[in-house]
Amino acid sequence: MPLTTPALHTVTNSFPTVGIVGVGLIGGSLGLALKHQQISSSVLGCGRSQSNMEEAMKLGAISQISTLKEISEQADLIILCVPVAQTKLVLTQIQPYLRKETIIIDVGSTKSDVIAIAKEVLGEQVAQFIPCHPIAGGAQHGASAAKFDLFEQRQLIICPLLENPPQAILMIEQMWQQLGAIVFQMSALMHDHIFAAVSHLPHLLSYALMLQVANSEDAQSKFAHAGAGFRDFTRIAGSSPEMWRDISFANSDAILTQLDEYINILQHFKKLIQDGNSEQLEKLLMIASQSRNNWKG
Amino acid sequence: MPLTTPALHTVTNSFPTVGIVGVGLIGGSLGLALKHQQISSSVLGCGRSQSNMEEAMKLGAISQISTLKEISEQADLIILCVPVAQTKLVLTQIQPYLRKETIIIDVGSTKSDVIAIAKEVLGEQVAQFIPCHPIAGGAQHGASAAKFDLFEQRQLIICPLLENPPQAILMIEQMWQQLGAIVFQMSALMHDHIFAAVSHLPHLLSYALMLQVANSEDAQSKFAHAGAGFRDFTRIAGSSPEMWRDISFANSDAILTQLDEYINILQHFKKLIQDGNSEQLEKLLMIASQSRNNWKG
Repeated sequence: MPLTTPALHTVTNSFPTVGIVGVGLIGGSLGLALKHQQISSSVLGCGRSQSNMEEAMKLGAISQISTLKEISEQADLIILCVPVAQTKLVLTQIQPYLRKETIIIDVGSTKSDVIAIAKEVLGEQVAQFIPCHPIAGGAQHGASAAKFDLFEQRQLIICPLLENPPQAILMIEQMWQQLGAIVFQMSALMHDHIFAAVSHLPHLLSYALMLQVANSEDAQSKFAHAGAGFRDFTRIAGSSPEMWRDISFANSDAILTQLDEYINILQHFKKLIQDGNSEQLEKLLMIASQSRNNWKG
Repeated sequence: MPLTTPALHTVTNSFPTVGIVGVGLIGGSLGLALKHQQISSSVLGCGRSQSNMEEAMKLGAISQISTLKEISEQADLIILCVPVAQTKLVLTQIQPYLRKETIIIDVGSTKSDVIAIAKEVLGEQVAQFIPCHPIAGGAQHGASAAKFDLFEQRQLIICPLLENPPQAILMIEQMWQQLGAIVFQMSALMHDHIFAAVSHLPHLLSYALMLQVANSEDAQSKFAHAGAGFRDFTRIAGSSPEMWRDISFANSDAILTQLDEYINILQHFKKLIQDGNSEQLEKLLMIASQSRNNWKG
């Protein structure tokens, strides 16, 4: 069930200064959306690539290029939009200058590991850290792919910490709702389990198929004749290798469990084909097909 | 390289009477397209489901509902649009009445098995059988999904037999080109190998993921939070279970080889994650990602 906060009204300039660390597709889109909704009047951006930061400036996704220190000292809200493996480095640089009023959120695809790092680096100040995950994105990356309406009608998962003040959670919830997102709350453990199955595993599976075709002797002929099914199946294999490398390790337990289950299903398919067990194979394909056609994605 | 036949001009009414056996998405679309292009003035339809045949009549995909005997006696061109496992039954019923001038084509996703069946059932008359495979379709099925422009800009593979008269091959090639398709020729062996990798395997992989999620205890939560990546990855799992059961057995050798290779890649991913081999995992994801982004699908 999505959360509907009791009194959702437009809160203009509720986070006057926002600092976005990592201005890629998600960070850039957040900058555009926060300005568009007048939630923030000043968006400070920080990132590894100078050319990408300049692109973000040009697009109006950020108001100025800043250092992590400046962001930590000035921002009312800090949003971490970096690959999850960089969370520790970034939080370590933010922590010494972090004001008590500032709220930090992240947008990482894994939550348990990010929370563990935040607790380690921020100590008691972890109360200011509210873990978030917008179910938005896509194969394109970089600030140039940013869109002000990226979060509209998309899910946003919050995995609140016991330490988070309810008022702070509410503010973050309302902010995402103003950006058009449908907000859900769940535990980090459940989050990581669910997304291992419906996001992390399919990404690895899609990468694996591309790798298999690309590494085959007649790759060129195969690519020349691949059709719409292949196109859709492999769309997510165009995603950022760094991001998905990090996710693979950040949520490794849940992903390995899902991978094992999946390999078992493939082994079972193999056996049914080898045995000529047409009836049982059709039965399984039927369950899959009906589930897909009943799913209201 | 696609074939361009030397003198492609519109051949009106080149197959005055066409018989379509199996009026689903492909058969129905062929009926609409052949009439639309004025290649045929009369389209006889034959199928297992009375309600689907009536739907095809209503949509104008066929001119009348006929028996296999009538189609065999009257049609200038017979198009088999049935799941590949039914090819033998259908050809056996057609063969006794088959005129010498009639051309038969199929639209099956596998070719070696269909050719073997055609040789067995038709004997010397196999010269009249020209194996075809349009790379078109999708998750929807039934006559109601038919579209007159389904083949426009889509690939069409012909796997000619040594027995086929060149003139007959040319006529079929031109017919598909009139429907907007881009025609390629290749051997049945190469066809089955290529499509095992870029079509048959991904279909089984997509079915397997749906099955895994659908059979899990918290399927409902998983489906509720699955996003766009999952949607695209599993689109082909909505395809006809009967059709894909048949393909799995019809092209089992090539599919089992591809499945084994794929499982090996997944086992390798597993090991890299277990070993914390971040560098090597990223390298492989990078190859996959670059291949996907360079692919002009």
